[in-house]
Amino acid sequence: MIVGKYGDDTMNEDILFNLMGNETRRLILKMLASGPCYTTEIADKLNIGQKAINEHMRLLQEADIVELYIKKQSRGSPRKYFKINKRVHMEFSVGPYRFDTNLEDLLDADFSDIFIEFPQLKTFEDEAKKTQHIHEIGELSLVMSSLTSELEKIIQAKEYLEYKVEQVRQQALILCEKLGLTDVEKRVVLEVVNAGGTLSSKDLSNRLRVDEGEVSIVLEMLERKYILERQ
Amino acid sequence: MIVGKYGDDTMNEDILFNLMGNETRRLILKMLASGPCYTTEIADKLNIGQKAINEHMRLLQEADIVELYIKKQSRGSPRKYFKINKRVHMEFSVGPYRFDTNLEDLLDADFSDIFIEFPQLKTFEDEAKKTQHIHEIGELSLVMSSLTSELEKIIQAKEYLEYKVEQVRQQALILCEKLGLTDVEKRVVLEVVNAGGTLSSKDLSNRLRVDEGEVSIVLEMLERKYILERQ
Repeated sequence: MIVGKYGDDTMNEDILFNLMGNETRRLILKMLASGPCYTTEIADKLNIGQKAINEHMRLLQEADIVELYIKKQSRGSPRKYFKINKRVHMEFSVGPYRFDTNLEDLLDADFSDIFIEFPQLKTFEDEAKKTQHIHEIGELSLVMSSLTSELEKIIQAKEYLEYKVEQVRQQALILCEKLGLTDVEKRVVLEVVNAGGTLSSKDLSNRLRVDEGEVSIVLEMLERKYILERQ
Repeated sequence: MIVGKYGDDTMNEDILFNLMGNETRRLILKMLASGPCYTTEIADKLNIGQKAINEHMRLLQEADIVELYIKKQSRGSPRKYFKINKRVHMEFSVGPYRFDTNLEDLLDADFSDIFIEFPQLKTFEDEAKKTQHIHEIGELSLVMSSLTSELEKIIQAKEYLEYKVEQVRQQALILCEKLGLTDVEKRVVLEVVNAGGTLSSKDLSNRLRVDEGEVSIVLEMLERKYILERQ
């Protein structure tokens, strides 16, 4: 379930990498993640001039990660507050023969069929619903505690599977070396393994950024060597 | 079990963010992900001067993501090649009430006790072990396919739980607003909720980057309002 992938015109991996490449912007987002803040608050806390902060806020707003709103104060004039208004999740992997990035917009995630695969999560759904009526910090903390301990377990399982995926990739690479494949043949074979066995020549051409004609020639060669088979 | 996390002196999230924040470095890593390259090859392909490329390579080598080696040529003098020599996986999530980063080194993970929580993963362990003897790309692809479909399910569960965590955080913030807490009181309460209910005043002071004396005063105030309790 990859939800709400951004089009090329809005948020993409490159924009997010560029934004997150700056330490001050990371600190600003960290601050805003604990609640809305106003400019002087951010500038004071990070000990950075307001002008610089303004420039960072402009970039974050342009990327639509951060939103500005005006809040009346009990005393004095209204203040400009900033808050995070996106929910994004990004992953990337770098390794020999690997450079993958994936960006997801979690804002309109649909978890309606999660309980079919994971019936045990139903209890958390019920608990989380309760929090809307909970008026005690202590009770909220208890719900949080059970959520995070379940989350830790799930993260373990995820890391385990990712590690296994990496092992299989490594194994495929060793096999390619043994077969004495050329660099481009290697890349084709590794992409097919990554895809779990089947991939159209068009998808291959897109993923490897090699034109379809060349992909076809490589595929023919790999077929002749009995390494891949066309369907 | 967060495995293979880097110490502060070696690779960490900040170093990786800073490296990946530059478009040229991303393009270089993408190139190297399709096989080792030499400097002029990279400079020509990206249409960037060798001097600039050298500087990027220096930074990538310093972070130990990229390694230099000398390869003899059939004609002419030996060439300096670069290759990726790390396998890292990084994730980050940004949202209202959320800023999480996680970096994994996929090379030396230890999952020895994963099967206690997830006995069903044992089948993948056995399958992955088989891959060491598998000499067919087709069979490797099948193992990959079952691994990735299990991984997708796990990722769904993880996203679901993270979403619930965020909801509870939001709920805590609404509660703080209702209670009319000051900004610093709010932050203390939210940290305690995030931690699942218990946190030492020293941890609080570190996380909020507020000195312990101030934290103590805030805690006393929150106790008097019957919002938090000291143990």
